[in-house]
Amino acid sequence: MPQYQPYSQIIQLLPVSRMNRYIHDGDNPDITEERKKATFDVDGFTEWYHGGEKRLQARREVEKYIEDHKELQDTHPTPFMSREELIDNSVRKVAGMAKYHEMIDMTNIEKTTYFIQMVHVRDGQAFSLHYLMFLPVLQSQASSEQLSKWMPPAISGTIIGTYAQTEMGHGTNISKLETTATYDPKTQEFVLNTPTVSGAKWWPGSLGKFCNHAIVVANLWTNGRCEGPHPFIVQLRDMDTHKTLPNLKSGDIGPKLGLNGSDNGYLLFDQFRIPRENMLMRHSKVLPDGTYVKPPHSKLAYSGMVFVRSMMVRDIANHLANAVTIATRYSCVRRQGELVPGAGEVKILDYQTQQYRIFPFMAKVIAFRIAGEELQEISKQLKKGEASQLPDIHALSSGLKALVTFEVQRGIEQCRLACGGHGYSHASGIPELLAFSCGSCTYEGDNLVLLLQVAKYLMKVAASESPSTNGICGYLHKKSQSNVSTLSSHKTYSDHQIVQDFEHATRRVVLQAFNKLKTESAMYKSHEAWNRCSVELTKAAKWHIRLYIVRILLLEVSQAPEDIRPVLRTLAKLYIFDLQVSNKGNFMDNRYMTPQQIDELKNGVWEALATIRTDAVSIVDAFAIHEIELKSVLGRRDGNVYPALMEWTKHSHLNKKDVPDAFDKYLKPIMEKIRAKM
Amino acid sequence: MPQYQPYSQIIQLLPVSRMNRYIHDGDNPDITEERKKATFDVDGFTEWYHGGEKRLQARREVEKYIEDHKELQDTHPTPFMSREELIDNSVRKVAGMAKYHEMIDMTNIEKTTYFIQMVHVRDGQAFSLHYLMFLPVLQSQASSEQLSKWMPPAISGTIIGTYAQTEMGHGTNISKLETTATYDPKTQEFVLNTPTVSGAKWWPGSLGKFCNHAIVVANLWTNGRCEGPHPFIVQLRDMDTHKTLPNLKSGDIGPKLGLNGSDNGYLLFDQFRIPRENMLMRHSKVLPDGTYVKPPHSKLAYSGMVFVRSMMVRDIANHLANAVTIATRYSCVRRQGELVPGAGEVKILDYQTQQYRIFPFMAKVIAFRIAGEELQEISKQLKKGEASQLPDIHALSSGLKALVTFEVQRGIEQCRLACGGHGYSHASGIPELLAFSCGSCTYEGDNLVLLLQVAKYLMKVAASESPSTNGICGYLHKKSQSNVSTLSSHKTYSDHQIVQDFEHATRRVVLQAFNKLKTESAMYKSHEAWNRCSVELTKAAKWHIRLYIVRILLLEVSQAPEDIRPVLRTLAKLYIFDLQVSNKGNFMDNRYMTPQQIDELKNGVWEALATIRTDAVSIVDAFAIHEIELKSVLGRRDGNVYPALMEWTKHSHLNKKDVPDAFDKYLKPIMEKIRAKM
Ligand SMILES: Cc1cc2nc3c(=O)[nH]c(=O)nc-3n(C[C@H](O)[C@H](O)[C@H](O)COP(=O)(O)OP(=O)(O)OC[C@H]3O[C@@H](n4cnc5c(N)ncnc54)[C@H](O)[C@@H]3O)c2cc1C
Ligand SMILES: Cc1cc2nc3c(=O)[nH]c(=O)nc-3n(C[C@H](O)[C@H](O)[C@H](O)COP(=O)(O)OP(=O)(O)OC[C@H]3O[C@@H](n4cnc5c(N)ncnc54)[C@H](O)[C@@H]3O)c2cc1C
Repeated sequence: MPQYQPYSQIIQLLPVSRMNRYIHDGDNPDITEERKKATFDVDGFTEWYHGGEKRLQARREVEKYIEDHKELQDTHPTPFMSREELIDNSVRKVAGMAKYHEMIDMTNIEKTTYFIQMVHVRDGQAFSLHYLMFLPVLQSQASSEQLSKWMPPAISGTIIGTYAQTEMGHGTNISKLETTATYDPKTQEFVLNTPTVSGAKWWPGSLGKFCNHAIVVANLWTNGRCEGPHPFIVQLRDMDTHKTLPNLKSGDIGPKLGLNGSDNGYLLFDQFRIPRENMLMRHSKVLPDGTYVKPPHSKLAYSGMVFVRSMMVRDIANHLANAVTIATRYSCVRRQGELVPGAGEVKILDYQTQQYRIFPFMAKVIAFRIAGEELQEISKQLKKGEASQLPDIHALSSGLKALVTFEVQRGIEQCRLACGGHGYSHASGIPELLAFSCGSCTYEGDNLVLLLQVAKYLMKVAASESPSTNGICGYLHKKSQSNVSTLSSHKTYSDHQIVQDFEHATRRVVLQAFNKLKTESAMYKSHEAWNRCSVELTKAAKWHIRLYIVRILLLEVSQAPEDIRPVLRTLAKLYIFDLQVSNKGNFMDNRYMTPQQIDELKNGVWEALATIRTDAVSIVDAFAIHEIELKSVLGRRDGNVYPALMEWTKHSHLNKKDVPDAFDKYLKPIMEKIRAKM
Repeated sequence: MPQYQPYSQIIQLLPVSRMNRYIHDGDNPDITEERKKATFDVDGFTEWYHGGEKRLQARREVEKYIEDHKELQDTHPTPFMSREELIDNSVRKVAGMAKYHEMIDMTNIEKTTYFIQMVHVRDGQAFSLHYLMFLPVLQSQASSEQLSKWMPPAISGTIIGTYAQTEMGHGTNISKLETTATYDPKTQEFVLNTPTVSGAKWWPGSLGKFCNHAIVVANLWTNGRCEGPHPFIVQLRDMDTHKTLPNLKSGDIGPKLGLNGSDNGYLLFDQFRIPRENMLMRHSKVLPDGTYVKPPHSKLAYSGMVFVRSMMVRDIANHLANAVTIATRYSCVRRQGELVPGAGEVKILDYQTQQYRIFPFMAKVIAFRIAGEELQEISKQLKKGEASQLPDIHALSSGLKALVTFEVQRGIEQCRLACGGHGYSHASGIPELLAFSCGSCTYEGDNLVLLLQVAKYLMKVAASESPSTNGICGYLHKKSQSNVSTLSSHKTYSDHQIVQDFEHATRRVVLQAFNKLKTESAMYKSHEAWNRCSVELTKAAKWHIRLYIVRILLLEVSQAPEDIRPVLRTLAKLYIFDLQVSNKGNFMDNRYMTPQQIDELKNGVWEALATIRTDAVSIVDAFAIHEIELKSVLGRRDGNVYPALMEWTKHSHLNKKDVPDAFDKYLKPIMEKIRAKM
């Protein structure tokens, strides 16, 4: 008699918490098999990943709410919609949100954001800017009188706002915005004007058609002087008829790579007048007689930016989590090719190349999420006034935004490729993820420009005469403890050693850039010297951020609950070793590491891939991404991908008729002619 | 009196050939200024780039023809079209092509391909498969009787064909295709059948709605034995009514990342019968009694594949050329930020980081194009029977396809990012380029699978007991002439030295993979050992291809016309040095290069960037991409980008009305309710 234990018994032997909520009857057995192999408690991982029971509970409430309210869901998959249908769909859901506004709670930003995200997912909601920019900027830039005037209608929903800073000709360099706001003391008004076509406001979400107000950034002129860019609140459309007000011209800027459910718009002012009180005056002011009052130096402005970026880092890491979930689940139900000839086709996740396509990005989901959470914590402390390390943190937030958005975009594309042909179909859900994430490398600051800002700060720290060896930049002025890495085996490579080695490599890259800058500055004017070093400077900035991520990742993993610590540690090691191997030149520089040590790290990578293979499906299950958000035929929880792909085609307009109209219209006449000739 | 020379005189002093055909009145002066700086003859570059005067002349004829025939052009920009409009537009143009079939000349594939490409650009023409796969496969797989039956209607246009190999469940591993063709000797027919949903044919272009025939690949069964996958020609729709024939089910597979003007489709057979004569019988046969006759071993089949891939490499390099053209021109009319404070904003191409975003890919356009041309030459020789190095070449063509498509995709995305916010808009033209190029990493073979095939071949060569030191793999069995690189200055780094260093680095990577495979094979079964090395094997394959590209690039540049040789040499050096610096670990391994030598190469990169800066616009002008193909507001020849961006918005449906329908439908009622409560 064979020695085996019936499954029902195994289930009973498991502690209740070990029952896997992702296993259901009727699932694809190939995916169930994966789930049964989990070496950790999936629910425990989820709780850790989502920041504790309370926050997780709030997520589940949102999910239940949206499941229960069809008005908050898509009528059919968005990729089948034309641009007009996308806009209609998204405005319909906005109206649904207004109806169920009990879910919008500005005191619980996380829950509210999740609600908005679950309603709109990736089709680019018409009004995201209202919540993400208009309200926060109002809150931080408006005086208290202004707040009491504008906030109630902005919150109740009669004012729909956006944030209009970028112009057709200027995004990065806002000091050269062409839009002017010239104060006229006679009428106590500002006159807004767009002097040329390139001065048109360009890009703001929902500016084209749906918002009726905007915070407009314009160069302020008063008493014949330009005082630089300032924010103004401007009504754009009639509150009853929604018609564009006279002396304004606005519209949609046209289709984009993604976000086509949103009417990113343009706006031109023709000597358009607004009352003096519409300049947002918390920080600087223009008095009735036109006197300009400078803002007191304020660190608080920074904390807002840090907060927005922390949200962005978390949000974009979540997009990567979606893509990794899809690619991992699909790779366990896709069988293609044999490893042992004649032994039957294997799951493609069994190929090392496939693991290497996906798992490093699974590790990055964890690393980036932790970094984003940490940044959010820091920004909360900033708000409370603990601002000792403000410049460090500001640089950190810029750099994290840049590094993470770059990597996420790369990762989503790798996940797409990992799905083979089906990854190219919208059925996979990945094209929308890709299109969405591409934008994030540009908005909230072009990534390269951000990295150059980080580098500028690093160069200042490197040049400091009274350097600190504490804080985020402290490593720069520390001495290496050794000229060679002490790594002997990847299995015994301690957190302390890892941080040592990253500190060494990063310090070297940053100081090399610093020295090059010094050398070039001796020969060229300072701006020219800077430009000649700028590629190397961006690389230095990236290493600075990587070091930070490595450090915080190791720390958080060491403090994670015991049951999930091993799997997290493997993911962390994969992230770290892969960074080292992929950039081995930086670690071998000046013989700090030997080729043998690099080989050892490579072995660490291969071992981590094999280890993660066992838990892969359970790790992505633990991300707990709801299927409404996942929007993917390939990434379905149940693994029943193939019948669902066939179902998917039923949404195609082309399939409504056997013979398409275009055949009769264009081809039939030609074919008849040809046949007549034959 | 200032010393200056009037422009009219400069023009007169120039040799006539030096007049720049890209300079016109009314152009943006910022771009004219660039063109005046050219250090080489742009027309001469174009002639070299396009393979001589005769081929260039053929291009110009096609361009003129399409300019003169509106029916062959888009009615308005494709990004504003819904999927149905895209399909309508593309079928309309197909009908136009049939009307002007004098331009379709199967004896001049290059001209014909350019014609098709100029008509359809990137919207995914409905019938590309007819020309790219159906006709060529018919030509190479049909017997002479079959050819005389099928070719005339296929060329005249009554037969519209596609190539249906991939199934929902299988693309890479075609031995496991589920579709069966079972021979019935009683009726002398094959019975085609799809046993499960995952056996549905899936992906073939125009299979969904427009083709009426397909070459279907199915597993052949006769006399109770499976003889593996074979091609059959199958009629799918009625030739008069275009209705799907009984016992077939077909349709569109839905929207994709790109190619949405095409109806990539699915197809299921329900015991569908075709005559025995419909099996393509040039190579293998089934006799009337069901006897299977094996194909004689044929090397010719390879030459077709090499040809298709050579076309693909050239074609995809051309997509990169489009993106580089757009990013370069735009970067000379975009002014953003100051280098010298107060001195006015600079062209963004003056930033080193911007140059580094774009120029390495400009260099790759040249490198990949040369490699593609060379491959095409080789495949022509193969056809003539010169097949001594067939396996070498087959591996080369697989590897080139993989490496080039990967890099092109990366490059197009970099060009998109280089355009800042506007790169995200379809006005840039880059989203379509990106979406189009993404697919090429998957079709005609998943890139990783191809690289593994190359690696398999390399391992065979490495293990060879009677190795040759000639040919594409010859370097593997050569000895390094030195244990250290002889590079002293990047300025004097000779072609010979460069090839030496790349041979050394490549040999090392390949042999390391070989040794790892040997070690693992001692411990694991051979398939397991292979899998455990597979990531490293793909890396080895990439280096093998890089070495080939470097060698052919240096050779071709050294033979280029004198006037353009300097600029080509700078581009080649940028390509090469950047490869070395970005993979410095591979060159520093075992102390082959010192950190100082790497620094020297870095200086070479910075110097190349600065040199190319002067000629950048003229280099992309010399690619001579017609504006109908470029489809880009940002990449316009005249540089008048900003007014054109505003014009572009007029195509948006959303801009037809001031107040959008969705406002009245969804938002107005809610706002009225809110206001009533207030
Ligand atoms: C989807 C999307 C949504 C958006 N939503 C909004 C919105 O709601 N409101 C709003 O106001 N704006 C919005 N924007 C605009 C966005 O903020 C800008 O596009 C972004 O700030 C980049 O600026 P830019 O487009 O001017 O790029 P540019 O600055 O023109 O960048 C082009 C290139 O120049 C380089 N470059 C520029 N300056 C420098 C420098 N000093 N040194 C080195 N290199 C440099 C960049 O690295 C880049 O490669 C949105 C953009 C997108 C894509
Ligand atoms: C735009 C487009 C157009 C197409 N047009 C056509 C057409 O006209 N006619 C047609 O017949 N087909 C067509 N195809 C299908 C295309 O040829 C296949 O998608 C392609 O061959 C990849 O196969 P797959 O989809 O099965 O990928 P899979 O093989 O399933 O790949 C998924 C993953 O598994 C990995 N993998 C698979 N096998 C192995 C292995 N042995 N070792 C290691 N890793 C492995 C891959 O690397 C990849 O990461 C088209 C596809 C696209 C995207």
